[in-house]
Amino acid sequence: MKEFVFFNPTRVVFGEGKTTLIGELTRPYGRRVLLVYGRESAQRTGLLARVKASLAAAGVESTECGGVKSNPVVSFVRAAINLFRHQRLEAIVAVGGGSVVDTAKAVAAGVHYEGDVWDFFKGQAKVERAVPVLVVLSLAATASEMNDGAVITNEATRQKFGLGGEALFPKVSILDPLNTLSVPKTYTMYGAVDAIVHALEGYFSGQDPRTPFQDRLVESLVLTTMEAVKVLGRDLSHPEARAELMWCATLALNGLTTAGVGPAGYPMHMIEHSLSALYDIPHGAGLGVVAPAWMRYQSARIRPKLARFAERVFRCAEGTEDERAWAGIDAFEGWLRSLEVPTRLRDVRISESDIPRIAGNALMLARKWDLTEYSAGVISKILRFALD
Amino acid sequence: MKEFVFFNPTRVVFGEGKTTLIGELTRPYGRRVLLVYGRESAQRTGLLARVKASLAAAGVESTECGGVKSNPVVSFVRAAINLFRHQRLEAIVAVGGGSVVDTAKAVAAGVHYEGDVWDFFKGQAKVERAVPVLVVLSLAATASEMNDGAVITNEATRQKFGLGGEALFPKVSILDPLNTLSVPKTYTMYGAVDAIVHALEGYFSGQDPRTPFQDRLVESLVLTTMEAVKVLGRDLSHPEARAELMWCATLALNGLTTAGVGPAGYPMHMIEHSLSALYDIPHGAGLGVVAPAWMRYQSARIRPKLARFAERVFRCAEGTEDERAWAGIDAFEGWLRSLEVPTRLRDVRISESDIPRIAGNALMLARKWDLTEYSAGVISKILRFALD
Repeated sequence: MKEFVFFNPTRVVFGEGKTTLIGELTRPYGRRVLLVYGRESAQRTGLLARVKASLAAAGVESTECGGVKSNPVVSFVRAAINLFRHQRLEAIVAVGGGSVVDTAKAVAAGVHYEGDVWDFFKGQAKVERAVPVLVVLSLAATASEMNDGAVITNEATRQKFGLGGEALFPKVSILDPLNTLSVPKTYTMYGAVDAIVHALEGYFSGQDPRTPFQDRLVESLVLTTMEAVKVLGRDLSHPEARAELMWCATLALNGLTTAGVGPAGYPMHMIEHSLSALYDIPHGAGLGVVAPAWMRYQSARIRPKLARFAERVFRCAEGTEDERAWAGIDAFEGWLRSLEVPTRLRDVRISESDIPRIAGNALMLARKWDLTEYSAGVISKILRFALD
Repeated sequence: MKEFVFFNPTRVVFGEGKTTLIGELTRPYGRRVLLVYGRESAQRTGLLARVKASLAAAGVESTECGGVKSNPVVSFVRAAINLFRHQRLEAIVAVGGGSVVDTAKAVAAGVHYEGDVWDFFKGQAKVERAVPVLVVLSLAATASEMNDGAVITNEATRQKFGLGGEALFPKVSILDPLNTLSVPKTYTMYGAVDAIVHALEGYFSGQDPRTPFQDRLVESLVLTTMEAVKVLGRDLSHPEARAELMWCATLALNGLTTAGVGPAGYPMHMIEHSLSALYDIPHGAGLGVVAPAWMRYQSARIRPKLARFAERVFRCAEGTEDERAWAGIDAFEGWLRSLEVPTRLRDVRISESDIPRIAGNALMLARKWDLTEYSAGVISKILRFALD
């Protein structure tokens, strides 16, 4: 096991109906909040109205800031920072999925910073202070509700970059599975894929092969997520399966799966960010394309782990290590297909001729994340595994 | 899955050699600290000297308060509170295992309280404020380094009771596996048993049978702990196995294993507390006696979980559910014996005639913890399973 620091001060309040607590949980952090939400679902389902009622009942005044899109953009963040400052607000309540939570965190970081908020994403400034963020989650996917990172797209530069810092851990995240009952099938599955790929990044890219607990933890999260998805495939409003998926997705990127595995580079996410930055496809769909391709490209290097993954998750126990490794990738890809998640570039309407552009874009992030082995040539080779 | 709140703000700094960071990590919390430690090992191994050197180098002055015994006592806590107040100190650095950390927490709670610190343990006062506690851990066992509880014995009343409160989470815990290399075999094994039984309390006593992730998490912790112990049985100073044991023990009682299982009553610990309160035996030894006895008494009620435990942990896949359940208990007991951990009352020099006294003592805690089904008669029946 490698050395690590584990620190995660987010208070998770989990359970059906817990949404109504948002008012009293927010009050210690401020009486005037920015209420950040998305484009449509929180209004349609009545979630937004419930949150507003709870805030009002607790004497918390809210300034609305709706319209966050998936693959959220920095222009929105800048506008929200101005609104926050102008209204002299005290805290942010994010109601939605990862895009909304990430937007809230970027705003929280930007409010006290004199320069442009994108400086944080470029690595030209560090987040030292942030206003408090509270979350009412409505999509199981990114784990942004229990970590200190956020990913935002700069539309002008076509960069999908991240920022982070301990000040950005949400103070409170309400995980109420009832708020996810109406998520449509596609986005439910994309969320599950995002969660599983989060867990697998450290599993396959960790630097220490001797991490038996962490390996088991990841396999536990993957297996439980897959079971939940199987139930949800038949019944999208199964509350128990929604609850399982929600907690597993949160735990898949809260720092625990990677604690002790050494620096984990997130190469699958690195490449996917370029797909969604350039083509605005859903992140989970992009991961469905990138993950099996990345596994195939890396198969020789991560063979023992792939074989173990095949055995523990898909019960592929036959054949040589190499055969099991490949059987594991095929099984994983077959599982993605069974969910109707894209697994090829053409499934997301990207053609072979787009590969150089994607590789060029991904290279920016590879350099930023210090993934030096990922040249444009390597990234192109990986993407070519997603052709045919 | 049941509703839950998960909150754990302790910063864990894990890795070989991290002990030298204690000075700089302490400084933000105070320049004058109470240095709490045990009776012998921290001095003998040089750990105490290393901690003192690090504190001094960071400009932190320390007032020594050594001599904590295992099954730590409230008289020591009271004296330490007086010392802390008299010296006008600002924080506590605990160097040792669970007894030392628990003592530090009780002191931290008592400093700002006008009444007697035992009031917290009796439930007559709530911990609202506490001075900061930092930990340099030297024994993998209790997880006190990453939770907000503490267990202390009142010598006068023979009560081994606990206190808790969010203010008591250690601010920082340094988990340096090198500090555990010299722990003798007996205490290494007792620590492992404590960790495993912590994990199993929620596994067997949780109120919701549908907790697939939590079940897998517990099995992962138990399996990894058992593997580490197997290596340590041959080589006590194996750094990798020490690291695995240390992290698993911490995770076994940091709130994660029980999040979602419903109120978990800790009945095995409840009964063991009376053994160590009355006979001053090591907690891990007492658990070796109580745990299999409790499983046998509860076997009908928890049969499916026992059978699963047998299958997943000990690979007992043969026979009916009932047969597998009993095979699991036998296998667990056999594993304890293989570590030379006591499994019968006579192994810890307690006789059948002592049972009424133990049951009477345990009843106090059963009432405090609201484990209403545990009458003196039931507790006696459980203990009789540890005879023969």
